[in-house]
Amino acid sequence: MLDEEIKIEDKIEELLRMTADKRYRELKLQLVEMNEVDIASFIEELDSEKTVVVFRMMPKELATEVFACLPVEKQQHIITSITDYELRSIIDDLYVDDAVDMLEELPASIVKRVLQNSSPDTRKLINQFLNYPENSAGSVMTAEYVGLKKQMTVEEAFAYIRKYGVDKETIYTCYVMDEKRRLEGVVTVKDLLMNPYDTVLGDIMDVHVIKAYTTEDREEVVDTFNEYSLLSLPVVDKENRLVGIITVDDVMDVMEQEATEDFEKMAAMLPSEKPYLKTSVFQLAKNRLPWLMILMVSSMVTGGILLKYENAFAAIPLLVTFVPMLMDTGGNSGSQASTMIIRGMAVGEVEPSDIMKVVWKELRVGVLCGVGLALVNFIRLMLQYPGQLMICLTVVMSIFFTVIIAKTIGCTLPILAKVIHLDPAIMAAPMITTIVDACSLMIYFQLACRLLGLLG
Amino acid sequence: MLDEEIKIEDKIEELLRMTADKRYRELKLQLVEMNEVDIASFIEELDSEKTVVVFRMMPKELATEVFACLPVEKQQHIITSITDYELRSIIDDLYVDDAVDMLEELPASIVKRVLQNSSPDTRKLINQFLNYPENSAGSVMTAEYVGLKKQMTVEEAFAYIRKYGVDKETIYTCYVMDEKRRLEGVVTVKDLLMNPYDTVLGDIMDVHVIKAYTTEDREEVVDTFNEYSLLSLPVVDKENRLVGIITVDDVMDVMEQEATEDFEKMAAMLPSEKPYLKTSVFQLAKNRLPWLMILMVSSMVTGGILLKYENAFAAIPLLVTFVPMLMDTGGNSGSQASTMIIRGMAVGEVEPSDIMKVVWKELRVGVLCGVGLALVNFIRLMLQYPGQLMICLTVVMSIFFTVIIAKTIGCTLPILAKVIHLDPAIMAAPMITTIVDACSLMIYFQLACRLLGLLG
Repeated sequence: MLDEEIKIEDKIEELLRMTADKRYRELKLQLVEMNEVDIASFIEELDSEKTVVVFRMMPKELATEVFACLPVEKQQHIITSITDYELRSIIDDLYVDDAVDMLEELPASIVKRVLQNSSPDTRKLINQFLNYPENSAGSVMTAEYVGLKKQMTVEEAFAYIRKYGVDKETIYTCYVMDEKRRLEGVVTVKDLLMNPYDTVLGDIMDVHVIKAYTTEDREEVVDTFNEYSLLSLPVVDKENRLVGIITVDDVMDVMEQEATEDFEKMAAMLPSEKPYLKTSVFQLAKNRLPWLMILMVSSMVTGGILLKYENAFAAIPLLVTFVPMLMDTGGNSGSQASTMIIRGMAVGEVEPSDIMKVVWKELRVGVLCGVGLALVNFIRLMLQYPGQLMICLTVVMSIFFTVIIAKTIGCTLPILAKVIHLDPAIMAAPMITTIVDACSLMIYFQLACRLLGLLG
Repeated sequence: MLDEEIKIEDKIEELLRMTADKRYRELKLQLVEMNEVDIASFIEELDSEKTVVVFRMMPKELATEVFACLPVEKQQHIITSITDYELRSIIDDLYVDDAVDMLEELPASIVKRVLQNSSPDTRKLINQFLNYPENSAGSVMTAEYVGLKKQMTVEEAFAYIRKYGVDKETIYTCYVMDEKRRLEGVVTVKDLLMNPYDTVLGDIMDVHVIKAYTTEDREEVVDTFNEYSLLSLPVVDKENRLVGIITVDDVMDVMEQEATEDFEKMAAMLPSEKPYLKTSVFQLAKNRLPWLMILMVSSMVTGGILLKYENAFAAIPLLVTFVPMLMDTGGNSGSQASTMIIRGMAVGEVEPSDIMKVVWKELRVGVLCGVGLALVNFIRLMLQYPGQLMICLTVVMSIFFTVIIAKTIGCTLPILAKVIHLDPAIMAAPMITTIVDACSLMIYFQLACRLLGLLG
């Protein structure tokens, strides 16, 4: 898309010039030809005064589509600058999921004005959707789906879609419900196209519906989409009544957010709500400090171990110089293993029941890596400190055992965390490093005391 | 999906019992009712002998769909067990992208047999697709799209889709091409449904086509899908001729793979080709050793710094006990910052041009975190070592400056890597930790020498 993207940026430049020169008629002609996503990128670049001018220039339907693509600050600015009448038409045309996403971030006073200016039906729906727990299937779904009856023929179904489909988020998968809105089956537009006009939907619908429950975790929704390659997924309540659908574009957003959350957790941070550049310095520090504290206090234990072997490094100061290498190598070896397992569990590839297989694998990987690293170290030490065979052996053996233990701890702890229903992501690099540090120093100084005949 | 998943597992159990009891007629009736993904999960559980028996039981079309969902080992087993005639029918019915994915992993002798048993057209297409570079748009696309002409009416378009649509990977977005197969526009089935039968496609098609080039990186394809919420994306060659399409389900797979690759790179591993449990011990060690070596050698530099200040910790051995805490806290602070920036750049939220904004932000976050950590340390040290005010100040000031420098290095290096066209992910926790370790020890011992009057 590189060519295309440069073109879009040039286009936005051109539109900005038109706006500056107040060539509004020309601008309007350009806008109606464009994609709502690109128009939103253009409006993001405008100052507050021009934003409303340009926004009002667009036909109502396009304006609503663009509105849905804008960041919440711009939405807020537009809401506070337009009339109640204009606001009403936008809110009633927005998809419920977009309206809810916006309302969750707006200040209370503006939420109140928005709800006052939506129709009773919309208001009821929005309030219902606002109540689904965060990260649940209910919080990602929208209400604009095509609902059909099983007595309908293909021809009637097409007539219905032609009449009502224009406002739906997807028309390609239609849901067949009974009179109590209980989900009975799905029929795709492809099925409709491949069958004669007089076929009854009951005969062609798929009754084995893959569905989600409103309270289900959104990560499970992502897994279902991935497994079955879906375009949309119906969401039902406990009585199997259809309450909404989740579309694939929203699932892709969730995938991206969940991956970002895992990256943050694995680097010892609390997940942030907003993009990095929009998160305040205070909030960033608040997300990072708790784990830094916990890990700092834990690493004092490691310091205590060093203190215990004070005599050893007082006798042979050279010993201390290998501490950073041992700690770093141990930490890195352990976090390699833990990362593989945490990610493997996140994508459903590794299960806690695989623990023996995993440990056996990591033990052997540890031996291979340990031998490689020990060998390189041996050569280096024999060249650098030719006379010091015992010190050399101490370091080399420590490296070897540290790597094996690091791999074992690194692969075991995330699985154990999952078993006791903790998030495996907390057992990532920072935590593993702290634990492995302590182990590697114990091994090192124990070996040093034995091999070099020092007092522990 | 919890209920549903348990149901599926029970279902597979039941099918396995049927197979064991050779109740094949009953089994066949069950299979034709099921989803191809679930049938594939069932076949995965079968031994090699039963696999072919069950596979042959299914109607041809279903068998091909199930075949596409199987892991490559099962595919290979089936290919070697069926006749050339059966093989031919499967290969010609497979979507090209599925065929290519499979062929890329099969041994050469089997690839040869597969190609010999496909029709000349299919063979030509497969060979063409096999030649697109790895990770390019061409390597993810498939050839089964609906191509229309702009002179067609809506009615003709529907007739065409009814006739040929059944074999296409998606029918919902159709591509309008001229006689030289150059892409002229797109029209969705929704557009077709919302317009009268006699409308000409040229009048309703969208000529601002969002598209990709065959050689484009697949990460850019993911970005385009995310930005414009697409269901499919046309892929063209340099002459703007349509050669294939990418569908959203394949993009979701790519998203997951790319995130996994980033997790691996950020934990200092070379990305693996296969899932963890299917990767050999030797391959895992091979992916992990190079970075372990590089980082081990780098951390020897840190050891060298310690050696330089041998006199300092010989005079006051207590100093050494704070080394692990300083190294760990510095490493963690730095990798928090680098993770945020690497991820921010991966999702297109942070650009290299934001570098000044980012550094200024991290400086302030560093001050906040540094003050917090220093304070906790100060209290702890004054309680634990009441008389040692100067040592306490040395440690506290070192923590403070280490955190600030770690944040700055952590946010700067990934951006610099991107600027010089390296993958920012290599500037993650392990690399940052190694660099920050050296810095924090330098600060610590410099401060110690000055404040405590030691000889450096």
